Formats: sequence, C-alpha cells, structure tokens
Amino acid sequence: MSKMEGKSEAYKAAGVDIDLATQLLKNVKGRISATRTPQVLAPIGGFGGLYRIDLTKWKHPVMVVSVDGVGTKLMIAAMMDKYDTVGHDIVNHCINDIAVQGATPVYFMDYIGIGKMRSPLYEDVLSGCADACKAEGVCLIGGESAEMPGMYGNDFDLVGCITGIVEEDQIITGENIKPGHVALGICSKGLQTNGFSLARKVLFDKAGYKVDDRPAELCGKSVGEALIEPHQCFWKAVKSALDAKFPLDGIAHITGGGLYDNVPRILPEGVGVHFDASAIKNPPPIFSLIQKAGEIDPYEMFRVFNMGVGMVWFVPADRADEGLSIIRNAGFDAMRIGEVTVGDRKVQITL
Amino acid sequence: MSKMEGKSEAYKAAGVDIDLATQLLKNVKGRISATRTPQVLAPIGGFGGLYRIDLTKWKHPVMVVSVDGVGTKLMIAAMMDKYDTVGHDIVNHCINDIAVQGATPVYFMDYIGIGKMRSPLYEDVLSGCADACKAEGVCLIGGESAEMPGMYGNDFDLVGCITGIVEEDQIITGENIKPGHVALGICSKGLQTNGFSLARKVLFDKAGYKVDDRPAELCGKSVGEALIEPHQCFWKAVKSALDAKFPLDGIAHITGGGLYDNVPRILPEGVGVHFDASAIKNPPPIFSLIQKAGEIDPYEMFRVFNMGVGMVWFVPADRADEGLSIIRNAGFDAMRIGEVTVGDRKVQITL
Repeated sequence: MSKMEGKSEAYKAAGVDIDLATQLLKNVKGRISATRTPQVLAPIGGFGGLYRIDLTKWKHPVMVVSVDGVGTKLMIAAMMDKYDTVGHDIVNHCINDIAVQGATPVYFMDYIGIGKMRSPLYEDVLSGCADACKAEGVCLIGGESAEMPGMYGNDFDLVGCITGIVEEDQIITGENIKPGHVALGICSKGLQTNGFSLARKVLFDKAGYKVDDRPAELCGKSVGEALIEPHQCFWKAVKSALDAKFPLDGIAHITGGGLYDNVPRILPEGVGVHFDASAIKNPPPIFSLIQKAGEIDPYEMFRVFNMGVGMVWFVPADRADEGLSIIRNAGFDAMRIGEVTVGDRKVQITL
Repeated sequence: MSKMEGKSEAYKAAGVDIDLATQLLKNVKGRISATRTPQVLAPIGGFGGLYRIDLTKWKHPVMVVSVDGVGTKLMIAAMMDKYDTVGHDIVNHCINDIAVQGATPVYFMDYIGIGKMRSPLYEDVLSGCADACKAEGVCLIGGESAEMPGMYGNDFDLVGCITGIVEEDQIITGENIKPGHVALGICSKGLQTNGFSLARKVLFDKAGYKVDDRPAELCGKSVGEALIEPHQCFWKAVKSALDAKFPLDGIAHITGGGLYDNVPRILPEGVGVHFDASAIKNPPPIFSLIQKAGEIDPYEMFRVFNMGVGMVWFVPADRADEGLSIIRNAGFDAMRIGEVTVGDRKVQITL
C-alpha cells in the first residue's frame, strides 16, 4: 500500500516517520483486504496492483477511469477533527463520475499527501476509503501515502483514482437524449464534494459561524455536520437501471459548476434542457444558509453548488415514473426536475 | 481534463479562478491530444476517460496500476522556479513502478492540487506530463486540477496514476529468482523521486547551500540542477528484454528505501541478495555531497537513496552480459552489482 521514503533515523529527524506510517497502515490492512475480489492478483504491498479482466464476463471491455480530490471539504474535517467520512466522499465521488458512462466500478486507489503522519487521522481516512469501496463491491487495490513535512504543514490532501469497466456497445454517452425526454434529479444530502471554498468563505469568514453552531435554519444540525455530510454513491441506482435494461439515455453527475456546467457535458447537438428549481424536493437547508449569509444571487448559487440534485438522469417521458421507482427502490429520493428542449447544448433554470 | 469548482464571480472572490484554469488548460491541450491512441474513446473533458482493451493484442489481460507523487522534489522545483521537469518525474516514476511486473504502460492520469493557479507553472507541469507520456507511447487520458487557496498556500502537489497491461502468464513476479542469479543495476542520474526531505534538510538547512551554488564536488552542476535531475523511464530497456524473450526473472524499481527496502519486495522465500557498493559505476556526485554534508552513515545513505542504481534486474548468470547489452542498447548505462544467494529475503550490501 504505502511506499514511504526509507527507514532511517536521519529521515525521522528530517520529519518523515516511516515506522509510524507502516504501523498505522497495519491497523487498517484488514479492512483493505476485505475489499479484495478474485480478480485481484497481487498481495497488498507490491509495486503495482494487479487486476485481471474477466473475459467470461466482458466481451469488449472498455476501461473507464477518473481521478479526483476531496478539495477543501478536508478543511471542514480538520475543523471538526473528524476524518471518518472523507474517504467515503472521495470513493463515492469517483464512482459517480464513471457510473454516468454506465461503467461498473471495479477498483480504486488512494493518495494521501500529509504534513505529519498521525493517528487516528490516517486510519480513519483509509478505513473510510476501504469501507466505501466495500459497500460498492470495489477493490481498494493500491495507494500511496506521502509524508511531506515541509509542504503540507498541518494539512493533508486526499486523492482518489477509480477504474470501471463497460461493454463498448453499452457506454452511456448522452447522444440519444432528445427533445421531449425528461430530467430526473436524484436528491443530494449536501454539498457533496464541491463548492467548499465559497461555502467556507461565506459561512466562516463573512457570517462568523463556527462549525459547532446550530442555526435554526439547519433544523438541529450544526454547520459542520451539514457541510461534512458525505457524498452519496448513486451507483446502485444506475446498476438497477442497467440490470433492468431501462432506457437511461444520459447521466450527469452534478459536481462543481452545478447543473449549468455539468449537464451540457453530455448533451448532443441540437438539444438543451430547461430545469425548474422549484421542483427540487427538500433541498438541504445548508444551501439557503450559504445563500443568505453570502447574499449570493440564486443564479450564482446554481453555478457553484448542486442545490439538492446529486445526479441527473435523462429518460423518455413515458418511462419517467418507472425511472423514479428504480431510483427510490435503490434507496434514494428523486423527482422530475426538467425537460429536454430543442436548444444549443445549454441549460436554463427557472429560479 | 480539469474539472474546477464552477464559474462564478463569488467563487473568484473566494480565490478560485475557473476561467484562468480553463484558459491555461487550453494552452496545453495540443500536447495532451498528441498522446492519444486509437484505443482512447472519449474526448478530453468527459466525466471519465475511456480506454478500449484491444483483445486482438491481449489474450488474458491483467491491468497493472500504481499511484504516486513527486514528493518534496516539488520544493526544489519551486526554489528554482523551474517546473518543466516534474511532469517527467511523476510519469517516469509511475511507469517504472509497473514495468517491474512486465506491464506495458498504456494510460496515465494526473492530479494537481495547487494553492494559486498560475502560468507558466501549470502549463509547464502538464506539458511535462504530456511529453513524458508521449515519449513512452502512453496516453494522458484524464486528470484533475484543484485550486485550493486555503490549503496549499503557495505550494502544489503533483500525483500520477498509471495503468499498464500484461498477459496473465507473463507477469514478472520474482518467483524464479534463484541463488546464482546475478543483479544488474541500471544507472540512475540522481535522486530520482525519493529522499528529498532528507536531502533538503542536509544541503539547505544544515550545510547552508543555495540552489545556485556550484560546489566543486558536483563537477559544474548547481545543487539545484543536481537535485532536480529528472527521474528516468527504464521501460524501453524492459520492453527490449521482453521483446527478445530475455529471461528477466525479477525487476525492482529503486525508490524510497533504496536497495535495502525495494529488492526484498520481489524476492521469493529462501533467497537473499549480496550487493557490492563499489561495483556501482559513476554514482551521481550529489549522493557523496549529501553524505558529507549530513555526516550520514553509508548504511543509512543506502537505506534512503538509490545511490546510483535506478532499477535492478535479476537474470541468470550466464545471460548477464546479454542483459547488459540490452540495457545499453536501450540508451542506459548498467553494470553487474550483486549476486543472489541462499538467504531470508534480505539484502546485504558491502559498503
């Protein structure tokens, strides 16, 4: 798993403690091993991870890959001294990013860059990654932890790299999205993994909130709890649709840039989408708190945040109810939020 | 390629400048596109990168994957304000890490976490990645750049994620390494990508060198130039051996931990290796400068640094000369540096 920079007293004096890193990794090895599948060939600790493609299952396999970071949501974790959820954030974010193309996620790798290796932070982060992988049948096949005292100070960064597989003739591209299709929105539970630089500036710097504050708007949650709410993984819903051969003609994961920037990424020429913001059911109240505290224009809010929609599915209008049932049966809430129109690959939102 | 956190004036005020990032990415798009191969299906900019496995070429494909960072070699780059080589470092480091298992590198993804997006740093880093990929026939299939003003300050981190493919029955595992085999060392040109926290502490903090200093020991090079010397990619040598069906029974990439820690990772039960330090030809003089400046024990030097050996091949003794020829014909220097003995998966070095 971790490949540190050599065992050495001189090194330890330079701020890099290999023995501690090795010990902490041992503490979570069981949870990492629990994610292994028969397709994984190498033991943990080799130079590279080995994953055998099962050609009895995949006829024309296409690897679908993505790399991403948790961003400054990590600073919320630090403010709360709570590190067990950020592993879920990065794994789930990564899986969603490839699920939109119809890929079955198969393996994941983590990178932790950190100023000072420490417990239980390191085990909490890695355990979160392992548990999130396990929950979706994904193997945590490798990773790297780099202790860099001069560079990260007291901070750390968490990066994930996901790989999935899809049959070449079953890649979801969005090219079949047509005027008349409807947009189903899967509800998010918070900011997911985007918009934290703005949220922190507004809530902490401008409005003066502390992570432990519980403004009435958050209905009992603290500011920290609302912000750190883990990114959900929507793969189970996508998988249900694929298994049922449901006509899922396009999927957009709503990350940074919100509906405005993410939906056009999958739209074919000649179509646009018209969303109705009022159709979004029970958006997490953290969004209105940010908007009010920052006096931010609703248009800008939708440009930065997911605003309560974690993923958008484009489906034929006459199959919308069936699509909603599939999503709900997979354990998520969802609603119809928009319509595909003739257009120029642009998104309009009635705010 | 890059997925930033939404286009927004409020966001820009919070320190995240999406438009600049998008513009800078455009400047290097040509060099990234130049790495594409026919196996790559998606255009740059999709949610995930798509790579089709060529089943006319691979009968039982095993994916070999690794993630790694450049570590605090990045701080040398910052001290020199020279960012065109670190992309080569991460790509070459990653490729070597999977070449040791016999994998042909096929695609790569980068992650850049940065405090303040800026030019030409960003283009230099990404161009380095793209050019290094291109040189080895690897596709730069995706990546992520995250501007995190509150977290990285003036620093940045660079992480790479490599994927290769190997036939299941041709994975190089080291299990055929036997007493009597010899160890061939491929010469490194410097620290590669490991040991920089110690090197910086000794050379800058303790000895008081500046990056521009040119101590006589470095034969004309500055301290900065010697330290930033790019990590070489040894894949072409490995590929030549594989193409020639040369009996390459084990390969170790000498990263952090040096010969002591990296060689045992591939040794089977019942064997050890005895290296002769004096056999290493022309070790880069930066190592003796560090050793002298830090008054570091030779044993410790070999525990932290590669000491002039970038990669070790284990080959039957009667094929050693042929192995050396293959390496030299691929453009690297090499020499016989040790012998496999009966042992307990341990490395001994006559210093």
